[in-house]
Amino acid sequence: MRMESQPQRPSSLRKRAAITAAAADVFVRDGYDPASMDEIAERAGVSKQTLYAHFGSKEGLFVQVLQAETERAFASLPIHEQESASVTASSLRRHLEALGEAFLEVVLTPRMIGLRRLAIAESHRFAASAEAFARGGHERSVEALARMFRGLVERGLLAGDARRAARTFVLLVVVGPVDRAMFGSAPFAEQTRAAHIAEGVRLVLAGFGDRARNPSGDR
Amino acid sequence: MRMESQPQRPSSLRKRAAITAAAADVFVRDGYDPASMDEIAERAGVSKQTLYAHFGSKEGLFVQVLQAETERAFASLPIHEQESASVTASSLRRHLEALGEAFLEVVLTPRMIGLRRLAIAESHRFAASAEAFARGGHERSVEALARMFRGLVERGLLAGDARRAARTFVLLVVVGPVDRAMFGSAPFAEQTRAAHIAEGVRLVLAGFGDRARNPSGDR
Repeated sequence: MRMESQPQRPSSLRKRAAITAAAADVFVRDGYDPASMDEIAERAGVSKQTLYAHFGSKEGLFVQVLQAETERAFASLPIHEQESASVTASSLRRHLEALGEAFLEVVLTPRMIGLRRLAIAESHRFAASAEAFARGGHERSVEALARMFRGLVERGLLAGDARRAARTFVLLVVVGPVDRAMFGSAPFAEQTRAAHIAEGVRLVLAGFGDRARNPSGDR
Repeated sequence: MRMESQPQRPSSLRKRAAITAAAADVFVRDGYDPASMDEIAERAGVSKQTLYAHFGSKEGLFVQVLQAETERAFASLPIHEQESASVTASSLRRHLEALGEAFLEVVLTPRMIGLRRLAIAESHRFAASAEAFARGGHERSVEALARMFRGLVERGLLAGDARRAARTFVLLVVVGPVDRAMFGSAPFAEQTRAAHIAEGVRLVLAGFGDRARNPSGDR
């Protein structure tokens, strides 16, 4: 984190990104302890000296890999606050389903699943980083979704607490398939995945749908 | 599994239970590779010869630990099919909240969280057992809940597919706190936990509440 706050030259940033990408693949394939710093340097096309100059240690590199991959995944999530303006009552359900599909695409890549498994396995020695990785993957997505949902609440398309609605969306749509993948279970077939997303969206709409369309809804 | 199908003397079953309990604690504390078979034998009060006679190998012991602890946890879940008969419209919400609290008590023990973390960490070499552990903890609970919910559907207290309602309950109430614990995050404070459960139950009732009380509900 502290390193990020110093401005770096683009070539240096590119080098760091190449190293963390190479390191992510080696860590995921081999596990933390067996992963070889020599191989990571070789794959990234840098000397071992450069590797240590940038990251200090294997521990430091692992921590930066978790952080960099969280950033990358988060940046590729298709949650755009301004998009809520174009959603209509009739497109809301389909919009949320598409969001769910895109969300799962990002979090269910072998690299993200592998890093998540590693963060859990190594959480005893990287407690703060494992937690930051989890929070990066979960809390930040919830916050971004909540900002978009707030727009939908303002326009009367959703009702209630936008942050709760976002948290519910993530639990119902995203967490189940990710949890499955942790144990090496085969991913849902495409049809099952679509049904899972549709059911999650149905429940979000049942819990946070427009009051006007659902006046006698609970609470 | 094959061993279980042969009837065993009570003393032998007790010995196995003592061994798997001791092994669970050592595996959780040290991790799979560092765990010492000598220490497990000593803690269980048996010879190493007995340990290997019962479980064959460290791998075999680990697999049996996962299975035995899943069974133990599942048996202590307070899901009783017949209980649905005593639930009334006015006690339904409170009943489901109490069920959620009891559920979390069982799955959030340090031993269950530790074993779950180990099953994820070692899923590459114990794929079938890790999956069975996860399925034991998830699918079996969903099935048992669904049986109870079916009674509630028959009595008009819930509506829709009982199995989906059960799956929703587990996702909304149980999976989030377990996921948090995987990364070593501090558990919810008691108040936050109660609010989390209450919100999960509210959403289950919004999605699967009695149609009569919620005629214009989505779907």
